Amino acid sequence: MAKQNILTSPDENFPQWYQDVLNKAALAEGGPVRGTMVIKPYGYGIWEAIQADVDARIKATGARNVYMPLFIPESYLQKEAEHVEGFSPELAVVTHAGGSELDEPVVVRPTSETIFGEYMAKWVQSHRDLPLLLNQWANVVRWELRPRTFLRTTEFLWQEGHTAHATQQDAADYAARILHEVYVPHMEQMLAVPITVGIKPPSERFAGAINTMACEAMMYDGKALQMGTSHELGQNFAEAFDITYQSKEGKLETCWTASWGVSTRMVGGLIMAHGDEKGLRLPPSIAPHQVVILVIREDDAVTQAAQTLAAELGDMGIRVEIDDNVDKSFGRRATDWEVKGVPIRIEVGPRDLENGEVTLARRDNATKQSVAVSDVAKQVPDLLDQIQSTLFDQAAKRMKDRTQTISTLAEAIEASQTGWARLPWDVLQDGGEEELKASSITVRALTRQDGSVPDNEKESDLIAIVGRSY
Amino acid sequence: MAKQNILTSPDENFPQWYQDVLNKAALAEGGPVRGTMVIKPYGYGIWEAIQADVDARIKATGARNVYMPLFIPESYLQKEAEHVEGFSPELAVVTHAGGSELDEPVVVRPTSETIFGEYMAKWVQSHRDLPLLLNQWANVVRWELRPRTFLRTTEFLWQEGHTAHATQQDAADYAARILHEVYVPHMEQMLAVPITVGIKPPSERFAGAINTMACEAMMYDGKALQMGTSHELGQNFAEAFDITYQSKEGKLETCWTASWGVSTRMVGGLIMAHGDEKGLRLPPSIAPHQVVILVIREDDAVTQAAQTLAAELGDMGIRVEIDDNVDKSFGRRATDWEVKGVPIRIEVGPRDLENGEVTLARRDNATKQSVAVSDVAKQVPDLLDQIQSTLFDQAAKRMKDRTQTISTLAEAIEASQTGWARLPWDVLQDGGEEELKASSITVRALTRQDGSVPDNEKESDLIAIVGRSY
Repeated sequence: MAKQNILTSPDENFPQWYQDVLNKAALAEGGPVRGTMVIKPYGYGIWEAIQADVDARIKATGARNVYMPLFIPESYLQKEAEHVEGFSPELAVVTHAGGSELDEPVVVRPTSETIFGEYMAKWVQSHRDLPLLLNQWANVVRWELRPRTFLRTTEFLWQEGHTAHATQQDAADYAARILHEVYVPHMEQMLAVPITVGIKPPSERFAGAINTMACEAMMYDGKALQMGTSHELGQNFAEAFDITYQSKEGKLETCWTASWGVSTRMVGGLIMAHGDEKGLRLPPSIAPHQVVILVIREDDAVTQAAQTLAAELGDMGIRVEIDDNVDKSFGRRATDWEVKGVPIRIEVGPRDLENGEVTLARRDNATKQSVAVSDVAKQVPDLLDQIQSTLFDQAAKRMKDRTQTISTLAEAIEASQTGWARLPWDVLQDGGEEELKASSITVRALTRQDGSVPDNEKESDLIAIVGRSY
Repeated sequence: MAKQNILTSPDENFPQWYQDVLNKAALAEGGPVRGTMVIKPYGYGIWEAIQADVDARIKATGARNVYMPLFIPESYLQKEAEHVEGFSPELAVVTHAGGSELDEPVVVRPTSETIFGEYMAKWVQSHRDLPLLLNQWANVVRWELRPRTFLRTTEFLWQEGHTAHATQQDAADYAARILHEVYVPHMEQMLAVPITVGIKPPSERFAGAINTMACEAMMYDGKALQMGTSHELGQNFAEAFDITYQSKEGKLETCWTASWGVSTRMVGGLIMAHGDEKGLRLPPSIAPHQVVILVIREDDAVTQAAQTLAAELGDMGIRVEIDDNVDKSFGRRATDWEVKGVPIRIEVGPRDLENGEVTLARRDNATKQSVAVSDVAKQVPDLLDQIQSTLFDQAAKRMKDRTQTISTLAEAIEASQTGWARLPWDVLQDGGEEELKASSITVRALTRQDGSVPDNEKESDLIAIVGRSY
């Protein structure tokens, strides 16, 4: 009898597969207020691992964490014209509090640009205070009409960095540094998701930015997901909030600011980049459990062997979980751990154990091998490394195979049915970008010919990478 | 000429001293919306250290982190009668979002009891799902009319644990375990703040709880600060939200729930427990910088020696900062680090260095000693341990010296002018508690004669510890 799949096939209905994985792997579910989400322990464990790594990398660039209030006076948002226009339709507004109507309604932060602006203006006085490198981990709210768990939610968790610099060059360099030293290494090395980096065309920029750099990843279905952004804000916010400094020469100068963020959306990207017909496949670097040891049947020798192995692997710094829940069938448990994407499953049963062996099952490629109990601790670290690179390589191959280099709008529309298209940015001038948008295709990134990040969209011979997106 | 103090004297005006310390040590300032706060890098660094330690201890009890939404439907709060009554006057309500008026207004969480109730009811089915041990780190909002940074703010950061159990005993045991294995050891060992543990009288219980256990600490001025609480909620929330389980015998049973939390208020407690006329005094275990190395004058040998020392201490896992900002006077910098409460200051100057020496200054007792450069790394760990215990001992001595064992209401009112009073709980029956309240004195904790935590306020011969409080 063919094994019944507990998930919708990702090839048949990818959005339904995604929902199924969220449910079956117990990652998250919808909250009671439209568009909000409840992140369950397994999903939150992934986010905690992401946070720890991103936070350490951010601190290594010299930034420090702060906490700004959730509530922003409406007047703050109105100080920067493009910013308020960009966010107005998404705002949640508190009008009543403490039992009465407020004199001035307050906005629940959609981002903290404006409140950072207000306080940075107080904290920056002299050139000695620059650069001022701040970051915050927080929840933000953008009222969402077409919510999708992790990808697009009314409330999400993120980090938002906000920095003030003496010169445009310093702001640009730091914004790029965040991309190249924090976001890309995190995504590629921890999440095993290969990243295309570039700048956004003016139409796709953050509200109030003069330049937006983005990390784009290709998902299972060939669509793009924006995994993180870093913005040069020029002097727009500094002028609106009066962020000025006294130069070495004693002159009053206006700062240049930047901001940058990644969010719980990355968890969605992780799911959609690596998942397969059996569920999640987690890269070992980020997996809450790197190894699960399955006790096949209740038996003293089996339990003892499982515990010894768990202790041995645990001492090596490997995150290991024992499943001795023998009330459930072995098959059901194996399937559950597959859905959850645990990289290595070690099956410990009485018969194998008599031969001094256990079975190691890899989640990434579904191979199984018998291994002497005494060899397990030797083999697991290598195997975890192999799984980590296999997942990255598979995602990189998909991005390569499904990106077509073409030269016309018609070909771009065709190529975007299955993946991305690379074409000259020049082809998208004079209405080309709008024509693609009519087919739900957007410019994901502008890069130079060699793949490097251009300074702005006016450089000549730029490449546009276009596709459908989340 | 007498040295000018940069702070108000804590003995003359303690509230003003507190404000001065927040400002001068750059811990926090008020936010733009009434009662909110901006936590600056140094203050947030303390909170991060608190979070890391508390989180590890919570996880060691078996609880796992989740994230529940910020927004709660008004109807949820109304399900538990005492709960909605307790929180109604403090709620912030979103009535408009996404550009239009909402059909049902949503409340910004004042605590997540009700939303946990709703989801726990879905997640708990069988006795096998129990206990369900969850925790969340989040911001919450309680509109505050008399705000005070860290102590009482409209928005604050906290962790809130929510657990469901099969029996009342299991819920009671776990709620007590959080107190004894998480909160008290964190506060005493990390924050060096001695804690009095007891239960609250019914008048001081959390809205909807059947028992509230609390950690109370005595501040510099003899007032009490509630540093953390753990509540048994009985079956109140389980009944309101239908949190039930199938027992081993196949019967449908109602769960018993508990909740427990500590918040950014602890940062206020840390400041007020250890501060002195020169500012903050941070216990080494929680200090963002345990050692600051001051370069007295610009000089190659000095800079070199400072860097070598910093590297040596850093390699030992000590958090060390170099201050080579020689543009500012040495005296000014020394004072600034004193205000910030860094436990050890190492002064490196050319003259001392010629003799192969540096100066070690302890923040806690203001002593200074010359130490051979080669001995610094040997001495610093011991010194940090000594400072940690000195701070604890001083706070414990204050709590002991300023707690009077008395037997009448009049004596309790008198004793509460300078500290706490211990008196028989029986004396506070029949209007005694209300009489104390008229003098702003409340029961902080009920304990047994031997100081242990009673099961409930009806045990005989209980002691009431009363005092003024924050």
